[in-house]
Amino acid sequence: MLRFDKGEDFIPSFTAWLEKNSIESATVICGIGMLKDMEIGRYDGREYTRMTEPESCEILSLQGSVSMKEGARFVHMHVSYANHDFQAIGGHLFSGIVSMTIELVVAPMTPGLVRKPAGGVFWQMDS
Amino acid sequence: MLRFDKGEDFIPSFTAWLEKNSIESATVICGIGMLKDMEIGRYDGREYTRMTEPESCEILSLQGSVSMKEGARFVHMHVSYANHDFQAIGGHLFSGIVSMTIELVVAPMTPGLVRKPAGGVFWQMDS
Amino acid sequence: MLRFDKGEDFIPSFTAWLEKNSIESATVICGIGMLKDMEIGRYDGREYTRMTEPESCEILSLQGSVSMKEGARFVHMHVSYANHDFQAIGGHLFSGIVSMTIELVVAPMTPGLVRKPAGGVFWQMDS
Repeated sequence: MLRFDKGEDFIPSFTAWLEKNSIESATVICGIGMLKDMEIGRYDGREYTRMTEPESCEILSLQGSVSMKEGARFVHMHVSYANHDFQAIGGHLFSGIVSMTIELVVAPMTPGLVRKPAGGVFWQMDS
Repeated sequence: MLRFDKGEDFIPSFTAWLEKNSIESATVICGIGMLKDMEIGRYDGREYTRMTEPESCEILSLQGSVSMKEGARFVHMHVSYANHDFQAIGGHLFSGIVSMTIELVVAPMTPGLVRKPAGGVFWQMDS
Repeated sequence: MLRFDKGEDFIPSFTAWLEKNSIESATVICGIGMLKDMEIGRYDGREYTRMTEPESCEILSLQGSVSMKEGARFVHMHVSYANHDFQAIGGHLFSGIVSMTIELVVAPMTPGLVRKPAGGVFWQMDS
């Protein structure tokens, strides 16, 4: 379990931790806490439609994977969060700033998850 | 981690993989990707109310279990997905077609999860 | 995997099981089933706004952790559930009564997760 602190840029901080610990493949099986200034996306088969969420929101779930894409670590996470009316909203998580804390559970795997181009902006897991 | 490809009928494909690998009990701890033509349900204490979702949607989370029910593998998964407005929707997942990919994290367990009738259409885990 | 039965007060039942099994640190990586009479919350930086959900709802996901706070086990879970229109709603889970069953996947950890005051009502994980 990793803890991220208020103000951290979530995905770059996570990627830096993965690099420091030489983890190339992993799954993200749990993540709760709060994020603000999120950018999320929805893939339409060719590209992502994006939206931003400036508000600080409770993170309901985080699930995803870490793989290698063109030699660099690629964090692929989908987020579900609640707005101020408790309505759940979600999508592919492009970015977010930790607004209180994030507790993330990561299961490192044997290196081997690699992504390759699969048409458009989509990179398919090659394993 | 399993990867399902575009066009696969998600639950039958997963069940076939479980049979091929002789896995009778497992938990599903992470699943992201996209599904279309989903049928989801909501249990009212006696039966399921069902709805269908033709649109291809980002899967925000998949959680569930694999157990044996009357001698066959039974996949019990709850799904949360985002529609084109990023609103999250969800329920019991009856079926869905993989529309881009699904990356599923499965933790096999020692055989022993078995379901038995518990009134109405409900089968309770017997362990 | 733990199973909770109809009528159980979910968080006290889970806490009692943790005490009985001497588990001080753990992560909750999966939880599906149904809860009613839930109280959920949203942290605004100083305190929680709360709402109650009397209806029996499908639980879409449960993610969280178990740590020690002032010498007692502290269960921190975020929930996502679907209402009767399949809309997802969620937040910090304060309480709920099991209305059908809950199947919870818990990964015990080496003791060491401890929470300390971090301003207002917020207790930060100290590790």
